[in-house]
Amino acid sequence: MGNTFGTLFRLTSFGESHGAAVGAVIDGCPAGLELSEADIQPQLDRRRPGQSALTTARAEADAVKILSGVEKGITLGSPIALVVWNQDARPSDYAPAQSAPRPSHADYTYRAKYGVAASSGGGRASARETVARVAGGAVAEKFLMARHGIVITAWVSAVENVQAPDLTDAGITRQLVDAAPVRCPHAESAELMARAIARAKDEGDSVGGVITCVCRGVPPGWGEPVFDKLTALLAHAMMSLPATRGVEFGAGFAAARMRGSAHNDAFVAGNGRLRTATNRSGGIQGGISNGEPIVFRVAFKPAATIRKAQKSADYEGHEVMIEGAGRHDPCVVPRAVPVVEAMAALVLADAALMAEAYGAGR
Amino acid sequence: MGNTFGTLFRLTSFGESHGAAVGAVIDGCPAGLELSEADIQPQLDRRRPGQSALTTARAEADAVKILSGVEKGITLGSPIALVVWNQDARPSDYAPAQSAPRPSHADYTYRAKYGVAASSGGGRASARETVARVAGGAVAEKFLMARHGIVITAWVSAVENVQAPDLTDAGITRQLVDAAPVRCPHAESAELMARAIARAKDEGDSVGGVITCVCRGVPPGWGEPVFDKLTALLAHAMMSLPATRGVEFGAGFAAARMRGSAHNDAFVAGNGRLRTATNRSGGIQGGISNGEPIVFRVAFKPAATIRKAQKSADYEGHEVMIEGAGRHDPCVVPRAVPVVEAMAALVLADAALMAEAYGAGR
Amino acid sequence: MGNTFGTLFRLTSFGESHGAAVGAVIDGCPAGLELSEADIQPQLDRRRPGQSALTTARAEADAVKILSGVEKGITLGSPIALVVWNQDARPSDYAPAQSAPRPSHADYTYRAKYGVAASSGGGRASARETVARVAGGAVAEKFLMARHGIVITAWVSAVENVQAPDLTDAGITRQLVDAAPVRCPHAESAELMARAIARAKDEGDSVGGVITCVCRGVPPGWGEPVFDKLTALLAHAMMSLPATRGVEFGAGFAAARMRGSAHNDAFVAGNGRLRTATNRSGGIQGGISNGEPIVFRVAFKPAATIRKAQKSADYEGHEVMIEGAGRHDPCVVPRAVPVVEAMAALVLADAALMAEAYGAGR
Amino acid sequence: MGNTFGTLFRLTSFGESHGAAVGAVIDGCPAGLELSEADIQPQLDRRRPGQSALTTARAEADAVKILSGVEKGITLGSPIALVVWNQDARPSDYAPAQSAPRPSHADYTYRAKYGVAASSGGGRASARETVARVAGGAVAEKFLMARHGIVITAWVSAVENVQAPDLTDAGITRQLVDAAPVRCPHAESAELMARAIARAKDEGDSVGGVITCVCRGVPPGWGEPVFDKLTALLAHAMMSLPATRGVEFGAGFAAARMRGSAHNDAFVAGNGRLRTATNRSGGIQGGISNGEPIVFRVAFKPAATIRKAQKSADYEGHEVMIEGAGRHDPCVVPRAVPVVEAMAALVLADAALMAEAYGAGR
Repeated sequence: MGNTFGTLFRLTSFGESHGAAVGAVIDGCPAGLELSEADIQPQLDRRRPGQSALTTARAEADAVKILSGVEKGITLGSPIALVVWNQDARPSDYAPAQSAPRPSHADYTYRAKYGVAASSGGGRASARETVARVAGGAVAEKFLMARHGIVITAWVSAVENVQAPDLTDAGITRQLVDAAPVRCPHAESAELMARAIARAKDEGDSVGGVITCVCRGVPPGWGEPVFDKLTALLAHAMMSLPATRGVEFGAGFAAARMRGSAHNDAFVAGNGRLRTATNRSGGIQGGISNGEPIVFRVAFKPAATIRKAQKSADYEGHEVMIEGAGRHDPCVVPRAVPVVEAMAALVLADAALMAEAYGAGR
Repeated sequence: MGNTFGTLFRLTSFGESHGAAVGAVIDGCPAGLELSEADIQPQLDRRRPGQSALTTARAEADAVKILSGVEKGITLGSPIALVVWNQDARPSDYAPAQSAPRPSHADYTYRAKYGVAASSGGGRASARETVARVAGGAVAEKFLMARHGIVITAWVSAVENVQAPDLTDAGITRQLVDAAPVRCPHAESAELMARAIARAKDEGDSVGGVITCVCRGVPPGWGEPVFDKLTALLAHAMMSLPATRGVEFGAGFAAARMRGSAHNDAFVAGNGRLRTATNRSGGIQGGISNGEPIVFRVAFKPAATIRKAQKSADYEGHEVMIEGAGRHDPCVVPRAVPVVEAMAALVLADAALMAEAYGAGR
Repeated sequence: MGNTFGTLFRLTSFGESHGAAVGAVIDGCPAGLELSEADIQPQLDRRRPGQSALTTARAEADAVKILSGVEKGITLGSPIALVVWNQDARPSDYAPAQSAPRPSHADYTYRAKYGVAASSGGGRASARETVARVAGGAVAEKFLMARHGIVITAWVSAVENVQAPDLTDAGITRQLVDAAPVRCPHAESAELMARAIARAKDEGDSVGGVITCVCRGVPPGWGEPVFDKLTALLAHAMMSLPATRGVEFGAGFAAARMRGSAHNDAFVAGNGRLRTATNRSGGIQGGISNGEPIVFRVAFKPAATIRKAQKSADYEGHEVMIEGAGRHDPCVVPRAVPVVEAMAALVLADAALMAEAYGAGR
Repeated sequence: MGNTFGTLFRLTSFGESHGAAVGAVIDGCPAGLELSEADIQPQLDRRRPGQSALTTARAEADAVKILSGVEKGITLGSPIALVVWNQDARPSDYAPAQSAPRPSHADYTYRAKYGVAASSGGGRASARETVARVAGGAVAEKFLMARHGIVITAWVSAVENVQAPDLTDAGITRQLVDAAPVRCPHAESAELMARAIARAKDEGDSVGGVITCVCRGVPPGWGEPVFDKLTALLAHAMMSLPATRGVEFGAGFAAARMRGSAHNDAFVAGNGRLRTATNRSGGIQGGISNGEPIVFRVAFKPAATIRKAQKSADYEGHEVMIEGAGRHDPCVVPRAVPVVEAMAALVLADAALMAEAYGAGR
């Protein structure tokens, strides 16, 4: 269970890392939208392994194929099935994990849950599962842009101890983000991050990082109060990503150290509607969008797979030394950027349809 | 929409802050469980306003009444309806909000969403809505304790700039938590926190804070991979609470600054099953519990309602000065402690039933 | 589980027959709708026991109270909690059922499912549970009428061997339906039905019957294809009612005996859109409304509770004689008329919001 | 929307009749179950067109391919993606439907709903969509048989005016069902049915029919009361099938003509638990299984596509004559037999997991 996300714009994900294919079925995409594989492929290419020296060497073309729901380049309103065939699967790389669980991987917990284990790098726990999210998210983005002019941009804002300055108001575009392989649009920080990653890689280690995401153009009034606040749905989406350890909105954890008089966002007259002078709320108040940019940050732990030897225990309880086999990234955040964007798009597409249903603003 | 939480253990919440009552319907609580109002009232009392000088003066007995689903002290397997009558409602206190939205409240966004507004302190956006969560959460806790021996304890770990030491391994109990009105079990920090709150109150201001929560006794194998990871569901639950700005698990945002070799939790032989030597994963790996204590922290912003005058704008776009009327807490975190526990219990009760459904560990 | 119905317009039902109250929470009713208890009470009065010599003598005022979601007569968009207090509960009437399950009741199956049993007339299996449906359905009807001009009318079309002529095109109104206590608008049939019921009652027996329902004003394009066809959702709704044994749409089971050339509904030019010359499809084609009246029939079995002695067995497997205690109706269909209307309204209100979400016809 | 069925055992269906492929994703199938394509193919073969002179000539191998969720012949607990490639698609056959909607097809209603139309025989409204149901249902059947020993058998019990005798107690097997191409296990009736179909075909017409389904081995206590009664879920499932017009359980519509004393099923001592002497309840009482065979019947209308010319109207409102192009079945019921079985299996697999979740009978 748990392989479907969303209420009205729904993504169902399938596929093991080392099986035949990974894919997604999107149910609830409105009819009449222009859509082709060319709308989806660019984000898959940004997520793809092997893009630079910073990422895993696994070679996957990750070419997406639309199996249904689109005819003559127009969505039919029916389920859109997307499939990406696995090419460079090497289940044998992961054989040692069968007798001893890899530290901080899902090997142990999957075995506790299912009793069986995929003979592979985590099966569904592999980051390869995010291919389905990125493919589905690209469809959501197409819908959000076509119908509402919404633009979502994420970037790497921290790697290990390198913290980029706040760029949430800097009009960052994907082009700026992609200028450096590390996907930090602040050149100086990007350079330091690349070095931190290279250093960790050289030492057979990995590093964590933070992704900042900004969603512009969301109108006021989206989101449901109480349990399905936009903050709650976005947090759900982000914390469902592999390797995430935290999420924060607007002023985030720093808000906990502030006074109300310093944190409150004063309203000011905008053109046609109220705006706020500051955006410490991150575009969401009481769980509902206020028309300001939605801003959040997601913390990623360092990848659990490292080349360095680690002391651990096998399923029988004997001490063992674990050494990383399998291809892996010393830092997952550069490739996680399009994944964060995809999940944000899925949440917002759902919120858009929900707002239509209840006639927000009518 | 969005007033129901959970898949198999489901809470539906209702009631405006200044209406007749607030309440909850729990669907999916198994039959045969001992349950009475005495199981629920203590947590409502901990959430109740007017407990100390630190909290709002609103006087509510908050006595819960079970309307259905329980007979002769035993659950029937049918929906458990819980109601708490509002007594000290004063909608007129909030009249000024009608022409100008209060900064960083939900006034503006609710109006954008619904077109109409409850003539009251936010209606459903009021913290009074959390009565339903606490009542329902107490039922979930009863189930988790009776069937699985699970114990959930939360406390205030930071207020404004006062940060208590890490107590996640200190065997903190609710009794220890409640020793100080601020609900921080570290006496020295509690004293400093109380002063910070009193100072803010004196100045007509508010302060934010952080709550840490530990869930002990969750067996390995609970949670669903991909979209419904335990981290994702807990994050959804926590970020659905009023005034929350962030959530983090285990090492949290600090993990983003770590190396994999320093962050990974090595397995060690436990009694009967593998344990981890450290718990930087916060008890959840790949979205599934590993048997270690589940540890997370939730950041709360300072309450938006302050007595201090604030510059803002009315719905017509004219500049106005807003001065806080209505009763409010200078710091919401002490009273939010049982609310965080309640939401954790709802997530875990759902995960418990889901684990039964799929026969985890069978 | 299973106490919530609907996706966007959702009803959650609670309450045992012999507990404190029965009630409902409606989540997803749009804001800005005029609503008061006076909109709901009339249908509850039509469902109420003790209306005529034909029905059970249980005396319940069944006065509905709105606890939330409405302020100054206008819906707020938040959950609408409705409660009806039980007054004339007599659990002791049902004591004998504890050692031997009543034939064709839910006593045996509830015990198999839950292990415990409510000390009462079936607990949730009682027809009293339909109070929540009727209350919630009245809200759905108000919405459907206000926003879409939809009118739903059901009536008794058969009782035991009395079959009224087809009146689906006869412009039947609730006033015409209520002219006779048996709720059949064909006077001659109504008279025969009343006699059949009286005869069964005299003999300590019960009789079954059929309800026909017509929904006028549903625009073309409502309903989802594949699993959530309007036929599927209406069938789900109707077969969730106590004592139902079958449901059919348009030509129904008779269609199975027809040729395609005789069954097909030819299109003809209407005013502004296509109409069909006949309506053997019952207003639904491919699961989606075609703008013609939606027509279906629901078969109800004779009430299981009879005064006549019946041979059966107790839980220990010993033969016993069962004699009906408890108040009951010799024929449930007259009182089931508003319940069928309520469930139809809930399905259509959900379909209305779903159509809005996806922009049908935009 | 509406392309997912089930709560814990969930099928998501995709694919247009004349697109690249049709398929399904099953989420919630427990881990550790033996499963291969050989478990699925036989039911697809029974559904396949071109099996006999009675069915459409469309030639499809309908070979299923498992893309995920199974490794070394064992389910992993992860989503099982199943795909069947379309081979003999001929969208051009259906071109005339674009200007005039075919009577009693979904052409008109799909256009009203979506604004766009698939250039094909109904797109998702085509019976080809049921490939996904049959594939998914075969997985559900495997689970039900392996874990619970449940056997589901459906057959054709009526075609046009030919009504086979009641065989619900006759121990009918699929082998007996498949002895005649019309799938009626009563040889004499089968012969008459085949003639009725051949006659309709010769005349360019179609005929309707009824399928009876029996599910043996379901233990007492499955199903949820109130809205998700087994009757309600099965009715939902059956009425979601193309061309269905009605469904009835146990005594069905005939129950409406009975007295309670004649309809009630007396309990008798069985081996180890109570049984009923008769089964007019069709194995379900109060919405919950009582351990007797579950028995229901589904009415199918005559196929809307006929070769005979029909008077109708085009979208502009002009009178037109419609003549059937495209391949089609003169009677859909023989091929619908495995589809009914599949939907029954999906409902029961979901109920099985739900029963586990709440510990029925523990």
